[in-house]
Amino acid sequence: MKQKIVIIGGGAAGPKITAKLLRTTKFESQIDLYTDEEIISYSACGMPYFIEGLIENSERLIVRTPQHFEEKGANIHLNKRCIKIIPEEKKIIVQDTKTFETEYVQYDKLAIATGARPFIPQIQNMNLANIFTLRKLQDAINIKNAMKGAKKAVIVGGGYIGIEMLEAFAANGLDVTLIESSQHILPVFDEDFSEKIKEKILELTKDSYKVNIVTADSVVSFEGDGKLQKVITSKGQIFDADIAVVAAGVVPNTEIARDAGIELGIKNAIRVSSRMETSIKDIYAAGDCIENFHIVSRQPAWVPLGSSANKEGRCAAINIANEYDAFPGILGSSVTKFMKLTMSFTGLNERDARKSGFDPISATVTQKDRAGYMPEARGITLKLVADCRSEKILGAQAIGEGDADKRINTVASAITSDLKVSDLFNLDMTYAPPFSTAVDALLSAAMVIYNDLHKCP
Amino acid sequence: MKQKIVIIGGGAAGPKITAKLLRTTKFESQIDLYTDEEIISYSACGMPYFIEGLIENSERLIVRTPQHFEEKGANIHLNKRCIKIIPEEKKIIVQDTKTFETEYVQYDKLAIATGARPFIPQIQNMNLANIFTLRKLQDAINIKNAMKGAKKAVIVGGGYIGIEMLEAFAANGLDVTLIESSQHILPVFDEDFSEKIKEKILELTKDSYKVNIVTADSVVSFEGDGKLQKVITSKGQIFDADIAVVAAGVVPNTEIARDAGIELGIKNAIRVSSRMETSIKDIYAAGDCIENFHIVSRQPAWVPLGSSANKEGRCAAINIANEYDAFPGILGSSVTKFMKLTMSFTGLNERDARKSGFDPISATVTQKDRAGYMPEARGITLKLVADCRSEKILGAQAIGEGDADKRINTVASAITSDLKVSDLFNLDMTYAPPFSTAVDALLSAAMVIYNDLHKCP
Repeated sequence: MKQKIVIIGGGAAGPKITAKLLRTTKFESQIDLYTDEEIISYSACGMPYFIEGLIENSERLIVRTPQHFEEKGANIHLNKRCIKIIPEEKKIIVQDTKTFETEYVQYDKLAIATGARPFIPQIQNMNLANIFTLRKLQDAINIKNAMKGAKKAVIVGGGYIGIEMLEAFAANGLDVTLIESSQHILPVFDEDFSEKIKEKILELTKDSYKVNIVTADSVVSFEGDGKLQKVITSKGQIFDADIAVVAAGVVPNTEIARDAGIELGIKNAIRVSSRMETSIKDIYAAGDCIENFHIVSRQPAWVPLGSSANKEGRCAAINIANEYDAFPGILGSSVTKFMKLTMSFTGLNERDARKSGFDPISATVTQKDRAGYMPEARGITLKLVADCRSEKILGAQAIGEGDADKRINTVASAITSDLKVSDLFNLDMTYAPPFSTAVDALLSAAMVIYNDLHKCP
Repeated sequence: MKQKIVIIGGGAAGPKITAKLLRTTKFESQIDLYTDEEIISYSACGMPYFIEGLIENSERLIVRTPQHFEEKGANIHLNKRCIKIIPEEKKIIVQDTKTFETEYVQYDKLAIATGARPFIPQIQNMNLANIFTLRKLQDAINIKNAMKGAKKAVIVGGGYIGIEMLEAFAANGLDVTLIESSQHILPVFDEDFSEKIKEKILELTKDSYKVNIVTADSVVSFEGDGKLQKVITSKGQIFDADIAVVAAGVVPNTEIARDAGIELGIKNAIRVSSRMETSIKDIYAAGDCIENFHIVSRQPAWVPLGSSANKEGRCAAINIANEYDAFPGILGSSVTKFMKLTMSFTGLNERDARKSGFDPISATVTQKDRAGYMPEARGITLKLVADCRSEKILGAQAIGEGDADKRINTVASAITSDLKVSDLFNLDMTYAPPFSTAVDALLSAAMVIYNDLHKCP
């Protein structure tokens, strides 16, 4: 008899599990994917660029259609929300999001890929019109439509999505205020870098755009007559606004897992083994709903990112198919841009390195990304963090109008393989004037740390 | 008494040794640098872009002036050619290039950084006007001047400099023919990639430029009445030309080292230890004149590149200053571009991997460098080479209008640390739609190899 595999979730990980399972089980298992959305497999990361107008049609964000999977033999059930997992009976209950009818679905192996949803801070009157979160494709379409008649926007939260929405709104001529409750935007970076990013965003926008960044203040209330008109902060600041996006982080969708007795970890993400097994036999999980293992800290972390979701989905599928695969963990590598400014990160920042028991030593260098005499040369500022005891590279942060991301991926590779500072500064990176300097910023930073190691405690 | 350190050569490695020595010896040694040129420390790699017109003034290519070093206490002797090394007396003989007067110079430690010079194939009438090689800054100035009155150019040699000059001439409206004697241009790449590059160059230029690439034929004669008019090949092809650049490779300037009894290695490059010591005590060498240790093949190689020259110079200086440093070797990482096309390389290609005793397995993937829906997404084709026995990554080649170079540096880091195929496909690379795809081309290629490992012999 065919093995019956049920997958909950249609974002990134669910479709990836399905695609990989179809190949791995040679199309011989019965695969059913349930999602509470109308579509599956779309690029959530592309939505800010759709809103900005860089991508004309939201359908371009769809990676694979249900038909694609159906043709290969998987069954895709749209608009079906899983409301309960019953491990002892190897069943789930799904509810139709339109008719509200429920049905029991039997499984031999279950994969939970329920993703995450926006975290909603305590703000009065969240229900006014023109207040949005950005998670599903319909959110993006709604924001884009509402933006057309809007003049003033407020963004709640200074993480990656907040910054991307800042670009989208500013580029469309809106007067935008971003409000971050912490002291600094983009807390994945060290504070010095967060400050540099803020300064650079303000510098890039000062002549032709209307951009305001408020930190250390939080939105307490939205005001308006049915429709948003004002945003009130805890310090009593009042901002006029006819559109707002709340991008104050995400929380994992793990309530059904918890209710089924599945062990949760950090931030209530589902704890999984390196094979993507949950604490209950025959139930696997992948994507934004799972806890990650951080390769550098060797501690649990929760870094929900689309790139990891794909890898975890692949790993889960192989193990579900009774083969063997182990996922080594994550570095939290990430990148985004604000207009011409790239900001990229991998590993641990100095603050988290210290928290994780390392004795961090760092170097920050600012230099051109290409030979200084090349017309396209632009500046980058790169911070490299290493450990005094082991001399291993722990992380890196890079920002600038130049090609900052290239160096971060080189560091990600170096961290994965426990490269030491002394290995890194002699790394044979490519060099030609249109691409880098003869001594790249990354090698310069490694050299500075190496020369400073004697200052270690 | 002050230690007397003499450096021969003013290109990249010589000035680097000088700069590092000044700092390492805390400005307490006597440092004399001799060069046969009028200037020192300039970016030879930038010269094609100066000729093309992207850099207006040749002085922009100068990294450091003699005055810079003189102020810090080093003595820079311009227009002084070293004609003999006498190790038993710890002396060298230098000759003034203008007065031809010679003098003896005493040293305690000697550093040879004599670089390389163009290899001149056997071609009749090399002495006609408007036939050039490109190595020194004056060559670049001469080519640029001659190009102004020229209409048809021939380039002899399809290596990196040949390709860069092809762009420079084509961009200036010349009708250019590049002639490569081998079957394929750019032999650092595998043949399939060399062919792809050739096709892409022809495609990029077919509408607005006049570019012709001839392979498997060699130039035997230049013809003209005092000034170049025609180029004749061994297959009897005749090309009209009023300017030619011979870029048929380089040879190391090691005759004075050989005559002094210093051991030479592959291609007559100076054999050095990992501390940049030659076979004769107190004589060091660095830069294009030395033999390299290839990290992947663990064999000697000769890959003269500016990026390595800087690292070797640093290493030599530290050891000359009686401290300790070892240079781990090179991967031959390199990059160049032709108009919009980037071509980048690291490690071993498949052919050389086989020659070095590996059982290579490779995967070639073509995909977009960014999310396909982003307007700036461009294609890249990436070939990853690994070893069947050890499953280690051996090398990578990437070409395309997209950001090919980024992936190559990530591989360089992976190779340096002996990363396996299975480590690479789970590498946590940064992802955001403006920078990459959720599953990067590099990870896809690693995945294909991993899935194919069972096909290994």
